[in-house]
Order: sequence, then structure tokens, then C-alpha cells
Amino acid sequence: MKTRWSELDVIRQISSSAEIPYPGLVKGIGDDCAIIDPSHEEQLIVTTDMLVEDVHFNPLWHPPYELGRKSIAVNISDIAAMGGKPKYVFISLCLPDSTDKVWLQDWLGGVGSMIREHDCCLAGGDTVRGRNITINVTVIGTVSRDQALLRNSADIGQSIFVSGQLGSAAAGLLLFQQTAAKDLREQPFTAPFKKWHLNPDPDLRCGMLLSESGLVTSMQDISDGIATDLAHICAASGIGAIIEESLLPHHPDLPRVAETLGCNLTELLVAGGEDYHLVFTVDRERDEELHELMKLHGLEVYRIGATIEGTGVFLRSGAEMKEITYGGFEH
Amino acid sequence: MKTRWSELDVIRQISSSAEIPYPGLVKGIGDDCAIIDPSHEEQLIVTTDMLVEDVHFNPLWHPPYELGRKSIAVNISDIAAMGGKPKYVFISLCLPDSTDKVWLQDWLGGVGSMIREHDCCLAGGDTVRGRNITINVTVIGTVSRDQALLRNSADIGQSIFVSGQLGSAAAGLLLFQQTAAKDLREQPFTAPFKKWHLNPDPDLRCGMLLSESGLVTSMQDISDGIATDLAHICAASGIGAIIEESLLPHHPDLPRVAETLGCNLTELLVAGGEDYHLVFTVDRERDEELHELMKLHGLEVYRIGATIEGTGVFLRSGAEMKEITYGGFEH
Repeated sequence: MKTRWSELDVIRQISSSAEIPYPGLVKGIGDDCAIIDPSHEEQLIVTTDMLVEDVHFNPLWHPPYELGRKSIAVNISDIAAMGGKPKYVFISLCLPDSTDKVWLQDWLGGVGSMIREHDCCLAGGDTVRGRNITINVTVIGTVSRDQALLRNSADIGQSIFVSGQLGSAAAGLLLFQQTAAKDLREQPFTAPFKKWHLNPDPDLRCGMLLSESGLVTSMQDISDGIATDLAHICAASGIGAIIEESLLPHHPDLPRVAETLGCNLTELLVAGGEDYHLVFTVDRERDEELHELMKLHGLEVYRIGATIEGTGVFLRSGAEMKEITYGGFEH
Repeated sequence: MKTRWSELDVIRQISSSAEIPYPGLVKGIGDDCAIIDPSHEEQLIVTTDMLVEDVHFNPLWHPPYELGRKSIAVNISDIAAMGGKPKYVFISLCLPDSTDKVWLQDWLGGVGSMIREHDCCLAGGDTVRGRNITINVTVIGTVSRDQALLRNSADIGQSIFVSGQLGSAAAGLLLFQQTAAKDLREQPFTAPFKKWHLNPDPDLRCGMLLSESGLVTSMQDISDGIATDLAHICAASGIGAIIEESLLPHHPDLPRVAETLGCNLTELLVAGGEDYHLVFTVDRERDEELHELMKLHGLEVYRIGATIEGTGVFLRSGAEMKEITYGGFEH
């Protein structure tokens, strides 16, 4: 039996998870505004993202707990992309009257787990009724003064790195979208791809480490696919980029999944969105230093190409070169 | 002929209005996050609100310019209610594919006018496609250290004031909602009520003045009607309140509109939402000082009752006393 949600349920559950004192939060939920007392050594970084039912997620296959985690993760990923630390989370939630109370509890459970996992706090929000589930999250984080890693500071002749495997989330999405993939979806080897679509982990630790290292010249997260996100860095920095198909990192089972789904592996790797890893540039002579630092912290990063003079993002496959600027994933 | 909007239109128009340097804004639109460098003397206050088509506004009668202004005004009102100054605005906008380009331009025009009117800046946002128009605005403001006016600090035996006339926005909403009110809606004397529903002005100057004055013991804005919003102050402060029907300020034409609409005047005054004035408490012996200060600045405030021991909000009409706690407007 379905039990309908009430605004009181949301407020009760949210308040109980928001009662713990949090550094810098003078006043949390329960007044017209939250009050933050920022530390003098830090700057604040702010990001906001809206997720809409049937555009960014499909409630038919997206379990509420995983959706709750992802609702916060996509914003934490923006904070990670600046090399910052996420702190204060503000959630606006629009739910249809028909939403099941258990769905809401599970969603809030996912939200809470991602918030706790990254030492953030829920500082405010809004709950409204409407026809579609719509989730807007604003996260305020901190970064040491003038240490934020921007998109506009890459230079030519630098190495381009990514912080994780590409194409996994896009493959996961296709596994759910293609009705014909129903049997494939049940195969254990597809689990990592489904997981990465439903419940991606932002590369927060990596972002902070890169920021502290001083090795990185520019950075952003991969939400729309490397073809588009690297194009943002190139446009902002006034440079071009060549990435090597043979260097694009992926899960060992991705070729098998791509083949069974009948889709092009390279397309998944360069245009697949929502992996929420980081793409960043490093002075070529510091590549080794970067690899050693990452190894020391049990993290792995992958060199995929280099920046060049000019404009645009190019993919080199053997002797062939193809422009892929802004050829990424669109919701 | 309708021309469809494109994300590029939004970005172009938004960016052009966001290029001006703004104090404390190190990085605005164009990276993963905005970067804010807060002043050491101030605390930050943060509010977020979601407006949904057919729940909070009806596009059939709500012109986009006025809706754009209201989208920002409802958040500025929350900042005003803390006695703060709004600064950095973040907008998430969900639009259907079918939205007319002119509608979007007008909406952005309204957004820009409210932002400029209150010396704020557009610092970031998100644009997505979906079935319904959904608008989420986050505003970050500032307040002098420990000067924010909260809800939980009222005491018994204090005067209760409002910063403007009640019931206007609710009457305006009814004028649009009631099909039978079509002729009435055309009458010039209904203009102020329609205006207040479509395009309310937040009492920002009043809020800042009250904060600086040191006269106010608690404050919040009137978005859900005085019955509900005063109940929030009472619950947070652990007190009760009596308001006098005869003291509730309203537009001289409101009784005429209420009668023609066939609705109860008192109901409009105590339960009518969205007036976006302020309700606040003041030590009784400082009432005169408050009136003089307001007069000096060309503003008017209205004493409507007093706080009492106990719990709940009561309305006194002659010899009658009626509990109205949380009896306000619900979207």
C-alpha cells in the first residue's frame, strides 16, 4: 500500500539530520535564511544544479536512494572541479502529490548518506508540490584564498589528464534505456556501469589533492563528456587540444557492453556524459611528479593527450584526426 | 509567429548582464562554481525558493516580465526578513521546448530589473529542459556580524508590527482565478491588487533600516499570511500573540474588492499570502521611537497587536477572540 508524503514528513526527517552543530553554520534550517560565518583564510565557491524527472533521471529505473545520492553528487563534483571542499547544502524539492512516502524516505536517506560521506551539512531548502519530481541543489564550499582551479588557465604544450574511466555512466544509461537490453542488464558484468549511471562518486579527494599539489594549471568536471568538457577548458583558455583514442581509460568490460548494445566504443568514451571524473592540465615536465603523488594516495590518473596552439578538441585514432569539439552528451 | 528558445539565447543574455565587476565576486558565470570573497566584518545569509508553473504562478495571466521580477523578489524578501543585504543571485531555470523566445527574453528582463534595482549580481545558474516551467533561485546576502534578525528572539509583552498593507496579493490572485471576476478585473481600482500578486516589491530598505535601528526583537517576512508567519515567530520564540482585527492595515479599496469577489475581508487579511511585507516585534516602550524613525525615512509601519504568554496566534474582533495559528495561505 502506498502512503502519501506530507510536508511535515520532509521537515521532520530533514530537521533531525540537520541538528548537529557544524563549523561556520551559525543558523541552519528554521528561519528565513541560513547564516554562515566564513573563515578569513578561505573563499567561498557556489554551484547550483537542477535535476528533472524524465530529463535527468527516470524514476522507473532510478531507485530513490541512489537518486538522492546522485542529486548531491553532481554538485559536489562541481566543487571538486575547483579543488574545493563542499560544506553547506541547500535543497529545493518539488514532488507530485502521488509520491509514495517510502520513496521520499529512501531519497532523503540517499541525500543524507552523500552529505555525511563528504562531511557536509544540510543548511536549508524548500519543499513544493508539482506535476514532476524536480530537484535543485545548491552547494556552498570553501577553497583556500586564490587556490581555486579554473578553466581559463591552461597553456599550450601541457598534458591533459582524467581522474577516472570514461564512458561507464553512458553505458549504464543505455543499459536501462534500451528495452532490448533487458537480459543484458541482469548479467553481473554490467553492474559497474549501472552503478555509475545511478550513483556516481564525485572525485572530491582527488580534486582537493590536486589543488594542494600546485601541479594543475586548469580543471573541470566531466558531466557532458570529455569532448564537450575539454572544449570548455580550451575555449576559456584560448587553446586547442588533441586526445589519443588509445589512451582513453575505460572499464575492461566496456567494449563487451558496447558491442552487445550495438554502440560505438569511441563514441561512448568521448561523448558519454555524467562520469563525474575530473579533466585537468599539467605542465608536461611534472607528469611524473603527478603520478607519484597520486600513487602515494592510492589514486590513479590517466594522461589522455596534450594541449596545442589554436582552437578545438581533436581525437587522434592511429593516423586519423577528427574534430570532436562540443561533441558531448546532451540531456 | 513563435520562435523557440535556445540555451545559447539564455547564456548570451545572462552573460551580457553578468559581465560587470561586482564587489566580492572573484569569479561569476563561466566555471564549475562561482567564487566569492566575503568581507571579514560580515556574515553570509542564504535562501533558496522554487516556483512551479500552475502551483506558484499561472503563465496564462502572469506576464513573463512581472514573473521574472517576482522570481527574484520572493528571495530578496527572505534576505530583508533577516535585516540583510542581497548580493549574489543563482538561478536554475527549467523550460519546456515550446517556450517562446520572446517570453524568455521578457522573463530575463524582469529578472535583470529586480537584480539591478537591489544592487545584486547574477553569479551563476543552470538551464534545463522539462515539461513545466520551474524556477529555482538561491540568493546569498550579507549581514553585519551577529546582527541578523531571527524568529526565535521575541519576548512576551512586545508590540507586533507589519511593514505594509495585508491581503492585497491574495485579492489580486482571486481577481485572476475567478472567471466571474473578468469584468471586475478590468476596473481601474483593482490595479493595485493585480500588481501586488504579479509583481510584489520586497521591503528591503525597511528590513535593513530595522536591523540597523536595534529596535527589533524578532522578524520574518509574510509569504504565507500573517496567521501562519506570526505563528512561526511564536513557535520559535515560545510565546503567543494577539492581533487586533481593527488594526490590520489594508488598501482602502480592499473591502470593495472583497465584497465584489464574495469573499471575507478578515480572511483575506489574516490568511492571505504573498504580500512579502515584514512582521516583527518591538519592545512596547520603543513604539514611538520606531514610528519616528520610519517617518524620518518616509516609511510606514503598523502596530497590529502584542505578544503574550502561552502559545498560538489569536485574532481579537471586538469582544470575540479566535485562534488562527497556522491558518494562512498554502500554495
